[in-house]
Formats: sequence, C-alpha cells, structure tokens
Amino acid sequence: MTRTESRPESTPTLRWEDAFSPAGRRLSSSAIREILKITQAPDVISFAGGLPAPELFPMDAIRQAASSVLDRYGPAALQYSTTEGHLPLREWIAARVNIPPANVQIMTGSQQGLDLLGKVLIGEGDVVLVEAPTYLGALQSFAPYGPRYLQMQTDEGGIDLDALEEQLKTTRAKLLYCVPNFQNPTGRTLSLERRRRLVELTARHGVIVLEDDPYGSLRFTGEEIPSLYELALEACGGPDGSHVVYSGSFSKVLVPGLRDAWVQAALSLVRKLVQAKQGADLHTPTFNQMIIAELVHDVMPAQIGRVKAVYGARAQTMMAEMKAHFPAGVTHTVPQGGMFLWVTVPEGLDTTPLLERAVARKVAFVPGAPFYALGGGENTMRLSFSSANDGQIARGIRALGETLHEALA
Amino acid sequence: MTRTESRPESTPTLRWEDAFSPAGRRLSSSAIREILKITQAPDVISFAGGLPAPELFPMDAIRQAASSVLDRYGPAALQYSTTEGHLPLREWIAARVNIPPANVQIMTGSQQGLDLLGKVLIGEGDVVLVEAPTYLGALQSFAPYGPRYLQMQTDEGGIDLDALEEQLKTTRAKLLYCVPNFQNPTGRTLSLERRRRLVELTARHGVIVLEDDPYGSLRFTGEEIPSLYELALEACGGPDGSHVVYSGSFSKVLVPGLRDAWVQAALSLVRKLVQAKQGADLHTPTFNQMIIAELVHDVMPAQIGRVKAVYGARAQTMMAEMKAHFPAGVTHTVPQGGMFLWVTVPEGLDTTPLLERAVARKVAFVPGAPFYALGGGENTMRLSFSSANDGQIARGIRALGETLHEALA
Repeated sequence: MTRTESRPESTPTLRWEDAFSPAGRRLSSSAIREILKITQAPDVISFAGGLPAPELFPMDAIRQAASSVLDRYGPAALQYSTTEGHLPLREWIAARVNIPPANVQIMTGSQQGLDLLGKVLIGEGDVVLVEAPTYLGALQSFAPYGPRYLQMQTDEGGIDLDALEEQLKTTRAKLLYCVPNFQNPTGRTLSLERRRRLVELTARHGVIVLEDDPYGSLRFTGEEIPSLYELALEACGGPDGSHVVYSGSFSKVLVPGLRDAWVQAALSLVRKLVQAKQGADLHTPTFNQMIIAELVHDVMPAQIGRVKAVYGARAQTMMAEMKAHFPAGVTHTVPQGGMFLWVTVPEGLDTTPLLERAVARKVAFVPGAPFYALGGGENTMRLSFSSANDGQIARGIRALGETLHEALA
Repeated sequence: MTRTESRPESTPTLRWEDAFSPAGRRLSSSAIREILKITQAPDVISFAGGLPAPELFPMDAIRQAASSVLDRYGPAALQYSTTEGHLPLREWIAARVNIPPANVQIMTGSQQGLDLLGKVLIGEGDVVLVEAPTYLGALQSFAPYGPRYLQMQTDEGGIDLDALEEQLKTTRAKLLYCVPNFQNPTGRTLSLERRRRLVELTARHGVIVLEDDPYGSLRFTGEEIPSLYELALEACGGPDGSHVVYSGSFSKVLVPGLRDAWVQAALSLVRKLVQAKQGADLHTPTFNQMIIAELVHDVMPAQIGRVKAVYGARAQTMMAEMKAHFPAGVTHTVPQGGMFLWVTVPEGLDTTPLLERAVARKVAFVPGAPFYALGGGENTMRLSFSSANDGQIARGIRALGETLHEALA
C-alpha cells in the first residue's frame, strides 16, 4: 500500500486546530513556562522557578520508605487501589483537623484538585473571584471550564475585605479562589481578622471558597493562623456544612515528584470528586501514597523544621541584599513563610522586557503581569528564594540591582 | 464564636447538588464500581474485576529499579519535571513505532489520556462512536464533556465495517473510540482487513480515531496484527498526518499501581494535550516514570512472556470448564489475548439479578449491560481470567454453571 493509493484525492486532511473542543480552545500554554525556558541557561541564577530546594529532600528516608512499603504491602503496593486514596494517609490528614477520613480525597498533586474542582463546580460563564495577582496554575486549571474571572482588590495584607464586600453586593460569584498563607506569587498572608470576615461574608453570599494551602506549614516567622477551612468548620457546623474547600499538598514539605496532595471538603462534594477522579486517572499511584504515609509521622515534622529554617534564612539574605543593592523606589513584600516574595518597581517600568537584560547579567525572575487574570502588574516581579543558596542569592540580587539601576537611570 | 452567633438566620445553606456544573452533573458513579463492592467478600471467587495477577508482579526488579533510580538521578527523581514526560521513556516508546519522541505524551495512567483527549476534542453534543459493548471507563472519562454517543454494530470480529460505512454516510462523527486488541469487555480482536478499512473509512470521513490498546502486548495465541496507528502512519503520511491517536499503557504489562501510560499523536494534538496536562496534574510522577524506564529494556520483555503464558493457560482452563459445566445455549468469545472473555446467555435471561444468586454460590462476574452506552446486552456478562488461579477458575466456573442451570431450568 503506497501513500498515494491509500489517500484518495477526496480525503480531507485533518486540521487539528479545527478539531479542538471549546474547552480545548480555551487552553493555552502557560506564559511562565515559556519564560522559564529562557531562564534555564546553566550559568543563570534563577529566582524564576518555584522549585523546592532539592538538596533538602530526605533522600535516605524516602529510599527506606520505598523499601518498607514493598516489604509490608507486597504486590498490593503496585496494584490498582481505591479512587478515594490510601486509608492510612487519609486518616492522618483527617486527624490534623479532626474530621472523618471520608471528607478527604487524595489527589495526584494539588493541581489535580484544582482541575477536578473546576470541572465539577465551574460552568461556562460562572464568576470566579481571584486575587490580583493570583496563582497562575489555578487560572490554567480552571480555564477549560469557561469561568468569568473577577479580580479581588488586594493590599499588603492580601484580599481587601471592604472591597470584596462591595463587590459581592452586585456580583453573584460561584467560587472564590485564594492562597491565604504566603501566597504564590506575592508571599502575602491574610490576617485572622480578615479570614474570619472572609468566611462569614462568603457564607452569607453563598460563595464557595477554595483555599489553596501548599505552603501553610512553611511559616518561618510570626504566629500560626487558623485556616479558612478551620474557621468554617467552627462557624458552619462541621465538615459537611463547610463552604470552604481546602487543598493541601506534600510537594513543598516532602517532595513534589511523587505528586501527592489532597482536598478536604463536604461529603457531597467529595463524592462528586471521586466520580470525577475515576474518569481522570482512576487513583493516585498506590506506591507513592504509601511512601508518603510512611513519612508523615516521623520524617515530615523534622523535614518541615529543616525546610523552614533554610527558606527563612534565604528570605532574610535576599531581603538584606535587596536593601543594599536595589534602587530607591523599588519595594518588596516581607513574607512570613513559603517560597516567594514580590517586587514592585516604579510605575511605568515594565518588567517583561527587563527580563532579557537581567538574563544577560545572569539572573532571572518572573515578570508579574501573567499572574493577573485580567491584566495589570506590569511593574511587578516574583522572586523565589527557595532554591538558590546564600552565595547565589547575593550575586543574583546584585545583578538584578544593576539591571534595575540601569533601567531607571 | 458559637455556631448560632456566626451563622445568622439569613445565611443560605449551600446545597452542593445545586452547585455542580453541567460537567459535574453529567458525572455518575461507575455501575461496575458499585457491583464490585458486592463481589468483594473474601470467600467469593471473583471473575468480576479487571486486575492484573499480582503474584506475577516483578517485585524484585521494581525494588531494584527504585533503588537504581535514586542512585542515578538523586533528588531529580523526586523533583518537579517536564509535563511531556521523562525523555528516555518517551524515546523508548517512540522507537517502538519509529516516530519522534515529540509525538509521545506520558500520562498518569491511560485513564488520564482518555480524560484529556475528551477534554480537548469533545464539545457538547459531538458524536462519539463507541463499540457495543465498550470500555466503561472511556464512557466515564468522556461523560463530563457532553458527547452524544452512537453505538457501532459489532459481531464476533468486533466492529462491523459495513454497518459503520452506512452509519458514516448519514452521521457527522467527531471521534471513534475502540479497543482493537482483546477488547475490554469482550476479548474480541479486529482483523487486519477490518483495521485497514477502518483507517481508510475514518480518514475519508474526517473522523478522529482513538485506539485504546492496553492489552496489545498480551497476545497468547494467533498472529500479531499491526495497530490502527501503525496502519495510519503508513497510509496518512507519518505521525503528524495520522488521524489515529494511540493510547498505550504499562499497567497490564508491568504494574498498574505506578500509573504510567502514554498517548501517541500528531504534534498539534500533543501540544494541546501538554497544555491540558499542565492544568490537570503538571506532570506524571517523576520517580514512577524513571522506574518504568529502568524496566522496559530487560525486565518487561520477560515479564510479558510470563504474563502471556499464565493468562493464556487460565483462559484455556476457563473455556474448558465452561464447556464442561455451562448449559447449552450459553456461548462465549474465544480471546487471543488480554484478560477478558464475554458470555452470552439465552435471550430473556437478565444477568443483573443473576449476580446475587451467583454471589450466594461464591462466584462473581460483571453483568454486561453497563458496557453499552445506549442500553442492551442484558443477557451478557464479562468474565476476567487474569487474576484467579486454575483451581479457583474450576470451582468458580462450576458454581457459575450451577447458577445458570438453575436460572434456565
């Protein structure tokens, strides 16, 4: 059979662009992903990525856990398993906030939680409230489902509750998405008072809240604040009355490459997520869940301590270097935890074209604009302090300072 | 804060059923999943599930591979990695059919491939052609995207191409989904002649074909037949001209619990799948992909040999026992590979109520009706021969024979 014989003249050539569904057409490549490509030259000091520090990974403990899991469970560690997830892991998660394991669904990374929550909750045109700026990955997960984004005003303390209260008077919103602890991208944290008010206000207006909390355990300064989810448990009559849905992850406190995370929610929603997950990947890898379950009791608490200490010190180094080397008029947030801080340069200076000049000086950041669902933030940038060491931070921030001085001259 | 204080009388209670999106409402629990629950009593011999035989899992090789991966890659084995997947694994997959690795996207189980292909291709109301009966998990993956299913007529040789040709004259179909090798649920295999005709016919009508092939390597009798994908490569001008999309999996030839599979497709489609996967789970677990990549060269070929020999023998045992113990008028397919065969009982006997009587006799099967997208098949059932040993098969088929004799008496 030759090609000419088998493809008659009348055969239409398939144009994939025309074949994509409306959801498929709403997808686009992450702006950041393209940016990260240009920042990945080996001699560039990158504050651009959001990678946990690999030198802190508990390699021996994971090697040991993988082996123990195979000893203990045998072939069951590598067999199909339940969609809901490995029960001992769900029990551990549930016990943290004193809810039944039935309210916990294991996810293949918190990105899957965002995707499946988007799938079962967001219909075309539904209003989704997001911080300005917000986590880019959430925008990407929700996009295929056709949300109408509205930005919430934010200030140094995160979401501006007065502005939100006004907004909710005139807007019927379906979902409010936020990262209350050490937000990606800004590093900002929502105060207890604002949290209480957010929970009350959204309950009153019937708005579902998706609290994304991958960094919550990584507080290196200041006092712990209860999660929106915990406040809602108290205020709304337990796990099945909560309109707050909590997304947690092991990626930042253990390792990201095993892709293990979870969602805590009301049972009616968890049941729907189970159905969605059956169709999405049947279940999170059995082996990986069992490895994580081995680590949560003893290894993880110590690991969190190490990570917090290192990230806290790196954030301090970065802020000290910025103070010494950044031009006047350039400001930054002061994170109490997590992996990121947020830099604002004078109005009128666009950080996107600046990136190329920074990379020429062997330092990289992420321009802030892509983190805004509806535009804005051209004079901002995100810096990650998690994965560069002190020496790299010092050299990188100096180079970035030179870039900024030059641009502002 | 007491509950009464914090929940003013005016606060509406969130009704989750009202909050679900159209996609969420289209999801339902797998009928099989509910059925499997009643068949899981420990003393019941189950032909109901679709589990690979755990006693055949290459436990030592996997333990060894996990350890080697941690030695070789260090923390990179547990770090975030690219959405496209681990390059050495993609290269191995691509080399099997002589295409570039760029045409291969790693998936978190083939279920994820079905979900993401559904997401980017199926718009509400798009016609999706499925075999009658078809793989239930595909129906579940596609459901949220709102397809309009049409059933293709099938016979002992799988899809009836004459009937399909007639159907395509009057129907504008978007996607044709099929399992050409040792189909789940029937065990049937499409002949080379039918495959050629299917590829030609769908190319002519501009119908995208999704070839789901999890069992293709598990042929225990008869001759290998080229995949629809290979025929399309030949007929349609290479990987980027192919309207056939191929879904492959390591679940049945190595282990399912690591959740590793892939899709081969035209580059334009793979690029769109990469965007969809970014939002769905960022990437398949790094560690798991590396473990599989360790095993494909040496361990997997021997493993496939072992699995084929055992499944082939079990299929023979099951068919011999059926011949000896099933009533006249009960027929079954004769699979050349895979894990399933399909039993048809006389018209008018419904296998769904029969299940309870079978379970009372300590044997379980899956009634056939749920595998039909649009109804039918009440007098059919699926039997899996992969995970019961010869003794269990003999006892189970005898018990099932008694159940059938009683029902037909």
